[in-house]
Order: sequence, then structure tokens, then C-alpha cells
Amino acid sequence: MDIAEELLQGNRLALSRAITAIENEYDEATEIMKKLYPHTGHAFVLGITGPPGAGKSTLTDRLARAYREQGKTVGIVAVDPTSPFTGGAILGDRIRMNGLTLDEGVFIRSMGTRGSLGGLSHKTADAVKAMDAFGKDVIFVETVGVGQSEVDIVKAADTTMVVLIPGMGDDIQAIKAGILEIGDLFCINKADHDGADKLVRELNMMLDLDSNMSDWRPPIQKVIASQGEGIEELIGYIEKHYAYIQGNGLLAERRTKRIRDEMLDILSSNIGRYIKGKIVDSGRLDGYVESIRKHETDPYTVVGDIMKEMLK
Amino acid sequence: MDIAEELLQGNRLALSRAITAIENEYDEATEIMKKLYPHTGHAFVLGITGPPGAGKSTLTDRLARAYREQGKTVGIVAVDPTSPFTGGAILGDRIRMNGLTLDEGVFIRSMGTRGSLGGLSHKTADAVKAMDAFGKDVIFVETVGVGQSEVDIVKAADTTMVVLIPGMGDDIQAIKAGILEIGDLFCINKADHDGADKLVRELNMMLDLDSNMSDWRPPIQKVIASQGEGIEELIGYIEKHYAYIQGNGLLAERRTKRIRDEMLDILSSNIGRYIKGKIVDSGRLDGYVESIRKHETDPYTVVGDIMKEMLK
Repeated sequence: MDIAEELLQGNRLALSRAITAIENEYDEATEIMKKLYPHTGHAFVLGITGPPGAGKSTLTDRLARAYREQGKTVGIVAVDPTSPFTGGAILGDRIRMNGLTLDEGVFIRSMGTRGSLGGLSHKTADAVKAMDAFGKDVIFVETVGVGQSEVDIVKAADTTMVVLIPGMGDDIQAIKAGILEIGDLFCINKADHDGADKLVRELNMMLDLDSNMSDWRPPIQKVIASQGEGIEELIGYIEKHYAYIQGNGLLAERRTKRIRDEMLDILSSNIGRYIKGKIVDSGRLDGYVESIRKHETDPYTVVGDIMKEMLK
Repeated sequence: MDIAEELLQGNRLALSRAITAIENEYDEATEIMKKLYPHTGHAFVLGITGPPGAGKSTLTDRLARAYREQGKTVGIVAVDPTSPFTGGAILGDRIRMNGLTLDEGVFIRSMGTRGSLGGLSHKTADAVKAMDAFGKDVIFVETVGVGQSEVDIVKAADTTMVVLIPGMGDDIQAIKAGILEIGDLFCINKADHDGADKLVRELNMMLDLDSNMSDWRPPIQKVIASQGEGIEELIGYIEKHYAYIQGNGLLAERRTKRIRDEMLDILSSNIGRYIKGKIVDSGRLDGYVESIRKHETDPYTVVGDIMKEMLK
């Protein structure tokens, strides 16, 4: 049996290997994904994002336990775009989840960018699909930060929860503008800290001003993840949102849009890789760089020439 | 005269228009950049990055004033990858720099991703080149956050400064792992807050453990940007680093590497855009998406077919 078949039969090691293949862009990754694809589309995918220090790991831990108590199996993809070089910096965080890792019903996987630029969003989407095909009922995609890469990453989710904490300083305004449009619900963690009510008020004010809002107004739930407070209510909102998007066709619409985005994303990334490979292999890259450095030509002209040469 | 010629003659409005063309991917942007390219390579580019709330705007403001006092002209590209949808969320921050905007020797420009995914790093690099061709002596690239997109963005810089503040919570460990490898110098802002010395000690410990370190050990400077404290010392370190990379050939090496990365970046992005455009124009995208949604095929197979069709 190959990796995909073993994965489909419930082999955890095969799931782990499949994600390693995805992460490292091994050639077999595409073949694995082709085989897994027909078995995807059953899991509920929850995106969890928020700035550093918001306590997302602890919160994810609590949510995973709560879903396990409901008898559901859980997958966690913990993405760390803040660690472009070292990989695995999030490991420290994962240690907190130790109790969970002993539970056979939970599969946790950290992903970093490991030096390769870009591609993290579609690698994450593929890891989610691998867990989905494996049979996980609920999959969390947890990512540190609220930048562009994080937004791209949580696009793999059906429902996106943004985690904030009180007292985040000046840049909260900039952050809020970005998250307002991706948050299906907001979780104010560390709600026992000063400024929690102020943050709820500010968020509510921004939601009041949001003219693009559908008939779903993102709820705001205060929690203290470390003590488990507010988790039950939070899950209530998560499930309410899922029922909402299932009921009105929004889930199907989001998933169709996701297929579209993913396909274009895979296309860009594969073509980019193919053409870069061709140029590097042909040994011409250094010559181009040298001519540009000497100002004999410029990168825009070089790129135009390469495109004429390679595209039909 | 066209925009590029006017820009080269010192017309600020032309510079502003050129950056708008770059930001919105107008067709003329490539033509403008081709004309500006031969006039680039003179400015010193300083990257400034750090997590939300670190006070980067205030610090950039102080640094800009200090360089102005030395008689140098200054360009500031303020990139906000946390604002993928709305654009311009950083405007609130820029208001703090109001005093500077009245100074003809300073040109400030905010950039967001304005809805288009990716491409921000090479747009930022092009905006820097436009300011460089315009004749700015020093160009700051300031970006909120420490994620992958920020790392890509500060690659446009000769020297990169990472700004941190005391008391950043749990995720500081994850952040530090990522920044350690991009920081040529570290600035601890709000150094009068609790925990500043602890942060300096932690950073020093991480630097001690860094086995890849060259003979440049990134200095750590405590500042209180709001009061101007430590700014002079910080500039001392910035200039020391610049002299260091000029002296040992590292600057030339970094710039050559940057040309290589930028060329490949422009190549990927242009080819991706070209092919997406072709598929969308041919009206076939919806058909592909529908077949994938019905599980008749999968995105990997579709992408393979498209590549066979379009590439020579």
C-alpha cells in the first residue's frame, strides 16, 4: 500500500508522512493529494488567528478537549509564519498540549515555512485536506499573527475566529481594520485583565460601522482560556455560525470560492517553481543577475524575455 | 515628459504617481521601472520591523528627523501587511508624522495590499527603487509585524533593525526565533517599562547561542522613542553596520542576492498573473471549479493539464 491508501485506512504514521511530503514539496505530494482529494469535504474547519501573546494555543487546547468530550475526532494544524528560517519554533507552544498528544483521537501538526518563500497557505490547505481525508471531524487551523500570510492561511477555514486580548497598544487599530473582515466571531481572551470591556466596546463600535455586514453579526465572547471560562459559550457561537452558513448556502459558496482560490494558488506556485527550476538548471540565472547588477539591463526586461521564451 | 522623466527631475507628484502605478499594478508600472532602474543603487535602505505596538512609527519619525539634521533627504515606505482588505489602515499612524510631511526633504508613502494577494514584497521593493531613483539618501522600509510577509519585505533593506518592547507575552519566543536571523541590530523601545533589562538579557542569550553568527554581533540598543532617548546611539549603530557591510563586501553581496530574489519574484508574479488572466478570460475557470467541486477531478490534475497546455 502507498501512503495515501494507508492514510485512508487510518494509519497515523501515514498521515504524518503525507504532511511531511506536502510541507517539503516532495514530488510524491501531488500524487498523494490526487488520491486523497475524493475523500475530502467532510470535516468542519475552524480557523483561529490573532496577534502574538493572545493565548491561542491554550484556547485551541481547551476547544480540542471540549470537542473530544462530544465524541468528535480533532485535527490541529498549527501554522507559524513568524518562523521562516528555523522551522518548528512553535514547538515550545505545542508542549502545552502534551495531554492532548496522548489522545489517539487528536492529531497535532506544526508547520513553518522552513526557508521556502510563500506556498505556506496552500501547504496548510493541503495538510487540512489530508486530515479531512483521514476522517477528522473537526480541524483547527491555528496561526500566529494577523498579517497577510495569516489571512491567506485562514482562508482554508469554514469559520474563522479572531482571538484578541486587552491592552494591545497602538497598533490594535491597524490590526482591527484587517481582522474585522475575516472574523466570523471574536474571542477576547484573558478577559480578567484590565481593558477587556473597553476592547469589547471598541470592537462593537467597529462592527456598528461596518456597512458590508451580512445578517450575521460576529459575536464577541469573553473567555479566560487558562481557566476554561467562557469556552462552552464560545463553542455555542462556533456551532451557531456553522449552522448559519450551512443553512443559507454560504458554506457551499465559501467552499466553491476556496476551490477557485486554491486552484489558482497551486497553479501560480507550480508554474513559478517550474520556471525557476528551468532557469536555475540552465545555469543562466547568474548571467542575468550579473547583467542587471551592471545596469546593462533591468529585471523587468529580463522577465519579459523569459516569459516570451517559455510560454506558448 | 512621462512620469519616469518627471520623477528623475525631482517632481514629487511624479514620484507619488509612480508608486500608485506600482501599487495598483497598472500596465505602465513596468515601463516606469525600466526607466528608473539605471538610476537606482545609491540610497541606503534601512528596514524597520517589529510586532504591533512596538512604537515603530514614533521611532521612524525620530530617525527621519535625525537624518534630516545631518542634511540627508529621507524616504519612508510604510508597509501594512495587516491590512489586506481595507488599505490605508496605517494612515492613523502616519498622522503622528505630520510635522515631517511639511518637510520637502521627506517623502512618506503608506502601502497596503489593497485586496490583491501577494506581490507586496516586490511592490515595496519597487517603491524603494522609485524613491532611490528620485534621489533620496536614506530610505526607511517600516512594516508592522514579524511574519513571513514582513521578512520578505525587509529583504529590500541593506540593514534591518528589529524593534521590540518589554512584556510581549508568551509568543515572544516564537517571534524571537524568526527575527534573530533577520536583525542586524535590535532596538528595545519603551525601555523605561518593566522588563526591558530582562528582554535585553534574553536577546543576548539567544545571540550567544547563535552558531551561525558572522563577526558582526547585532547590537542591542535601549531607547525611549517618544522622548528621543537613545536615538543618537541607535544611529551610531546603524551607521556602524552600514560601514561594516560596505567595508567587507557584504553590501555588494546582499544587493546581488536581492537582485536574484527580486528577479525570480517578479518572474513568478508576472507569470502567475498572466496565466490566471488567460484562464479567467477564456471563461474556463468556472468549469474547472465546478468539476473539482463535484469531485470529477482534483485541482492538482487540472493544474497539470493547464501547465502542459501553456508552457513550451
